[in-house]
Amino acid sequence: MTRPDRMTAYPSDRVTLREVGLRDGLQIVKSWPSTEAKIDWLTREHAAGVRHFELGSFLPTARFPQFADLPALIDAANTLPDLQASVLTLNERAMDTAFASSISEVVCVVSATEEHSHANIRRSRDASVALVRRAVDMRDAQAPEVVVNAGIAMALGCSITGAVAPAEVLHMAEACLVAGADIVGIADTVGYAGPREVATLCDGMTRLCGDRPFIVHLHDTRGTGIANAAAALDHGARVLDGSLGGLGGCPFAPGATGNVVFEDLVYLSERMGFATGINIDALNGIRRILETEIPAETLYGALARSGPPSNLDWQAH
Amino acid sequence: MTRPDRMTAYPSDRVTLREVGLRDGLQIVKSWPSTEAKIDWLTREHAAGVRHFELGSFLPTARFPQFADLPALIDAANTLPDLQASVLTLNERAMDTAFASSISEVVCVVSATEEHSHANIRRSRDASVALVRRAVDMRDAQAPEVVVNAGIAMALGCSITGAVAPAEVLHMAEACLVAGADIVGIADTVGYAGPREVATLCDGMTRLCGDRPFIVHLHDTRGTGIANAAAALDHGARVLDGSLGGLGGCPFAPGATGNVVFEDLVYLSERMGFATGINIDALNGIRRILETEIPAETLYGALARSGPPSNLDWQAH
Repeated sequence: MTRPDRMTAYPSDRVTLREVGLRDGLQIVKSWPSTEAKIDWLTREHAAGVRHFELGSFLPTARFPQFADLPALIDAANTLPDLQASVLTLNERAMDTAFASSISEVVCVVSATEEHSHANIRRSRDASVALVRRAVDMRDAQAPEVVVNAGIAMALGCSITGAVAPAEVLHMAEACLVAGADIVGIADTVGYAGPREVATLCDGMTRLCGDRPFIVHLHDTRGTGIANAAAALDHGARVLDGSLGGLGGCPFAPGATGNVVFEDLVYLSERMGFATGINIDALNGIRRILETEIPAETLYGALARSGPPSNLDWQAH
Repeated sequence: MTRPDRMTAYPSDRVTLREVGLRDGLQIVKSWPSTEAKIDWLTREHAAGVRHFELGSFLPTARFPQFADLPALIDAANTLPDLQASVLTLNERAMDTAFASSISEVVCVVSATEEHSHANIRRSRDASVALVRRAVDMRDAQAPEVVVNAGIAMALGCSITGAVAPAEVLHMAEACLVAGADIVGIADTVGYAGPREVATLCDGMTRLCGDRPFIVHLHDTRGTGIANAAAALDHGARVLDGSLGGLGGCPFAPGATGNVVFEDLVYLSERMGFATGINIDALNGIRRILETEIPAETLYGALARSGPPSNLDWQAH
């Protein structure tokens, strides 16, 4: 099966939208879709034009049974052409498993603040960057085509320290690039950002990354998700994360919305002139999988209710 | 009771948020709050710091019974200090009633497109501008302190013609100002706009209006409401409309969200550095009036679920 190589996985001249619902969307749910339904979700979104997915996390299945079927999802992803399949790898053991599988991308997480790093990732920021370097070394030795993606959690506000200085985040991003990461992401993990914070940090990331794209991972916890995505696109971001129906919540704000709604992100991108190659009508149909499989989870999103404007050329060309 | 005069009703050096839920929010509902509950909503939002309200519309009460208690609301508004109470007046008869009452502002509506003007307002755009001039004349003769507000419907997309050229909207805005309107508003009546369209039109409005503020009335029909508000604030808008809980729908997209959520607009404005003087926690309590009185209506909004960040100085100073 054809697979994008490391240099073409994230083009810099167009917008890429990553579906993270299968991973971040299922991180804190109490029930989750069957493996068959997950594969249906993956397959149908791929058919709708989505090419970038986070499939899950290699975590102890006793504590995170929702990711126990990750190998089956990786197998399914491998049958679909041009699909960039990523998995979260939070430690060296997960990396071992990941590099021995046939995924196309591993996602490492570092934290923007020392406090959050110790409290939640249970290692220092330096140790996290060292783990990124270890992933790069393992990749070079075992699976040279695999993308190493380093995501910076709490990059736009921290559940422990509050405000986070952009300079701190840029320092961490640079450290990850120096460690050999192919791509770096900035995450508003707890949905603290307003559009001005996103604009400022994206300007810094654009200067730091040059022609290399960077990822912006937003949560809609406080209603600014789409506004922040617009600011990101206006300030150089070309890769945005989202989840179907905004699946996933915020562990720090019970009942709050989760990731930015993927369908609404597609509409925003097209409306702002960035072609996504994604069929928005098809996405609305795929939401039914979630409605059926995990009826207790609230799904969000405006496009699912209204549809796009019927008499307006809203799609980018 | 003190009342802002025409020149100070909309300051140009700060952001003003207008609560339009009592008017636009109730335009298409099947049930509505009791007069007592409406007055409670008004009084408590005033106590929370909101100073600008649309109270209703002088329409035939047989067809629009939800506005039959408008005189009682005007009386209640008059007991509250520094409250800018506006009413929608769609024809000369409504203006007569309005100017004979003790309101502080009349809102006239013109359409951005000739097609929508004929189909929905049942007069030409020129005739609508003539009605604005008539309102100004009546005001000058009968109630010199009343603000004449001219709102341009379909200013960012039209349910009949689709795209609307900014030049057409600016031409209509200028005609309203020449007719003597104190303030002009641009409305995304059907929620077609993306942030780039809002930015472009607001740039034009800023050039046209100079030091005089203009109003931006947004609907969140397609999830871009807050992103569009951010673009408006970034491009010179200083008066934004919203409704508590996003009350109100879109007659052209059944089931769709309505006005931008007022609480989320307060948070966005503060997060962007514009002090609103509004207590966001109090607003969450006021939503309960709507939950109790009109339980069939869906309320929206992220702040009501998450609250503002607890360890971040998100408020403007």
